[in-house]
Amino acid sequence: MSASADLGSSDEDYRLAAIDLLGAIAYGELSAFERLVEDAKMAPGIDDKIAIGAMATAEFGHLQKLVARIAELGADPAAAMQEFRASFEAFHAHTAPADYYEGLIKAYVGDGLAADFYREIAAYLDAETREVIIASLEDSGQTAFIVDRVRAGIAEDHRLGGRLALWGRRLMGEALTQAQRVAGDRDALTALLAGGVDRPGLDLAALGRMFTRLTELHTARMAELGLEA
Amino acid sequence: MSASADLGSSDEDYRLAAIDLLGAIAYGELSAFERLVEDAKMAPGIDDKIAIGAMATAEFGHLQKLVARIAELGADPAAAMQEFRASFEAFHAHTAPADYYEGLIKAYVGDGLAADFYREIAAYLDAETREVIIASLEDSGQTAFIVDRVRAGIAEDHRLGGRLALWGRRLMGEALTQAQRVAGDRDALTALLAGGVDRPGLDLAALGRMFTRLTELHTARMAELGLEA
Repeated sequence: MSASADLGSSDEDYRLAAIDLLGAIAYGELSAFERLVEDAKMAPGIDDKIAIGAMATAEFGHLQKLVARIAELGADPAAAMQEFRASFEAFHAHTAPADYYEGLIKAYVGDGLAADFYREIAAYLDAETREVIIASLEDSGQTAFIVDRVRAGIAEDHRLGGRLALWGRRLMGEALTQAQRVAGDRDALTALLAGGVDRPGLDLAALGRMFTRLTELHTARMAELGLEA
Repeated sequence: MSASADLGSSDEDYRLAAIDLLGAIAYGELSAFERLVEDAKMAPGIDDKIAIGAMATAEFGHLQKLVARIAELGADPAAAMQEFRASFEAFHAHTAPADYYEGLIKAYVGDGLAADFYREIAAYLDAETREVIIASLEDSGQTAFIVDRVRAGIAEDHRLGGRLALWGRRLMGEALTQAQRVAGDRDALTALLAGGVDRPGLDLAALGRMFTRLTELHTARMAELGLEA
């Protein structure tokens, strides 16, 4: 099956936008995998290291499906991912966790926010690409471990809750800054969101509603951790 | 099925030795997983990062079977692994790779040597534990990537071959130092290797032959990389 048959659209701009989005998600998962393993070094015990390792390997498994889909669309996966390397590295450089708890929150809140955002955008893509993206964002259920650890930490030391709430807001701010920068740089992606003659797009009102939904989901995740958003 | 029924021996010393060995291999794989991902940061391109991530997640998959077997034998996996944490951390502290190539050689030669050693010792264990260990040591085939990269690097710069050959010898020396230290500390493990009334053991001559085999396999691996051992 050729790439264009897959897409249900012969629009070359569309293909480039889909590759862009897949490349962004794939690099995001690769860098999340690396950071998770690195942050696991701060874990107090071996049980925690094993739990985080399981989360990281699940993340890496998702990556492989995205890479396969980029290749199916006729692009070089490494090149597609490379386009987003600087943005993600900047995000991680600005959000290096100071301790184990900040690393846990970053994994939970950061990955959750990214997943919500990609899921929103995936709605504008062809069915096959959308399915690969949705499957790649599935929570492997291991995040319950993070909720337990963070709640236990706050129960032990109430000041921790205040610090981690601030940290969650900072993560949200840094993520939005990087997302805006990427959107400004990537013409194909922006054009996809704006829609076309035969495709519905996001107008300003729809964009506003999307941010409202993202913020609500972020608030719910913070509450799950016992934190104010 | 109870632990003792599993073992085909009611010997408590035997059970402790098996748990010790599984704990050592499991911590070794956990730390190899963490170091592989860390060393992947030095990878020049995204293709290499993906290849190394795949090796690391395969390593983590093995770990989970070992953890399950330790629990089956009635021990706490994290506690069994903790016993070997200091030794492995000392090994890694003494063998921090200075560049990407040193990291690749460490993954290939270090993991290969550890696997050969554990395979030798597994011969003295019950069939079920032996099978879990042998399965956990299986090469997932991704090491061909390392051989390619190292050979290409040496073809480009011949001085690299000399430096990496020295590095391989250093890894061998550090591994033997740590293995000897562990063997001296762990009575149950030493007793297992010495054998018992109803179990054959390693005498000094057999130990000598084992080291000859390990050295030969190490030399073969170095040759595969295009390096003198």
